[in-house]
Amino acid sequence: MSVSSSRQVLDRQQVLAWLKHHVPAPRQQHILRVEEMAQALATQHHLNPETAAQAGLLHDLAKYFPPEKLLKLAEASRLEITDVDIADPHLLHADVSALVAQKEFQVTDAEILAAVADHTLGRPGMGLLSCVVFLADSLEPGRGNSPELDALRDLAKTDLHQAVWKTCDRTLAHLITHQRLIHPRMIATRNWALQLSPGPKNKSKS
Amino acid sequence: MSVSSSRQVLDRQQVLAWLKHHVPAPRQQHILRVEEMAQALATQHHLNPETAAQAGLLHDLAKYFPPEKLLKLAEASRLEITDVDIADPHLLHADVSALVAQKEFQVTDAEILAAVADHTLGRPGMGLLSCVVFLADSLEPGRGNSPELDALRDLAKTDLHQAVWKTCDRTLAHLITHQRLIHPRMIATRNWALQLSPGPKNKSKS
Repeated sequence: MSVSSSRQVLDRQQVLAWLKHHVPAPRQQHILRVEEMAQALATQHHLNPETAAQAGLLHDLAKYFPPEKLLKLAEASRLEITDVDIADPHLLHADVSALVAQKEFQVTDAEILAAVADHTLGRPGMGLLSCVVFLADSLEPGRGNSPELDALRDLAKTDLHQAVWKTCDRTLAHLITHQRLIHPRMIATRNWALQLSPGPKNKSKS
Repeated sequence: MSVSSSRQVLDRQQVLAWLKHHVPAPRQQHILRVEEMAQALATQHHLNPETAAQAGLLHDLAKYFPPEKLLKLAEASRLEITDVDIADPHLLHADVSALVAQKEFQVTDAEILAAVADHTLGRPGMGLLSCVVFLADSLEPGRGNSPELDALRDLAKTDLHQAVWKTCDRTLAHLITHQRLIHPRMIATRNWALQLSPGPKNKSKS
């Protein structure tokens, strides 16, 4: 089974050594916190904690790749590239990190690779492991301690889809405030998670 | 020329009579305010005020069509129908109003038909007349008198693209607060208008 074989072959020390050469120290600490929070969230939701930890460890492999390299790797792998990705290729780092996990560490587990690829923008229909890593990336303790963040952390423990929706909304508010482009996949993820959550959900405007 | 021929054939009294049978009185008043504001904005931006007024008058023809009728007409005309339109067919009323303008009033002016079709969600790359009607629909006096609305009205007088961007952001904030679906075309319009405006514009997330 690909899940167990992937778990067996991934050498955590090898990944950490690679990260030391490709990611600055503060980001390495973020990655370790995501690994830990993803593991904890997976346990809380009766998912495989080891798989979640591995996805967390691998999620930011390409975080510091230069824009040209991200675009080149994405094009070579025929990833979908939107106008927003072209304006801000950094958004491709999640999808490209999944490519690096395959090439550098021979990761074949589709669930782990999807969770890595979807950690920034999510994806409509994504699995629960992807939700866990998406949330761990946004909500790990290093992101701060506002009441809003603490509420999202509590929500993530009880309802992954609702937490994804609300985390998307928080990101959208940030992007609006900071006059940044909004990626269409973030909206698709947000609408999908909203429709899976309790409350008003099938109206867009009165 | 289609613009002048369209202007010549549209009978305002005929449209008003049709609206009395298809749109409640308060919405008729909104339509008249949009007609007036679109005309004024067009004059301020050296566009054709008569064309803008006609688009304003026609923009909400299908506003009260039932969801099934909107979907049926949209399908019959091979309009793009997204998941969000299916969840909330009311969003199709703008595109369908353009169809009604063609069928009921023989409107052929492409600029007017586009402005009617784009009045709710906008469209990336839309022309200035479409921007004027989009803004008049959101900002006409009947929408209220908050400082935010007044600032948008002032902005609309000086910079149509920036006003479209900020009006989209206001709508997005409303949709987030009210837990509504967000249409992907609203995001595409917003990103497009943002990129045409001064300030930070080619980053989506740090």
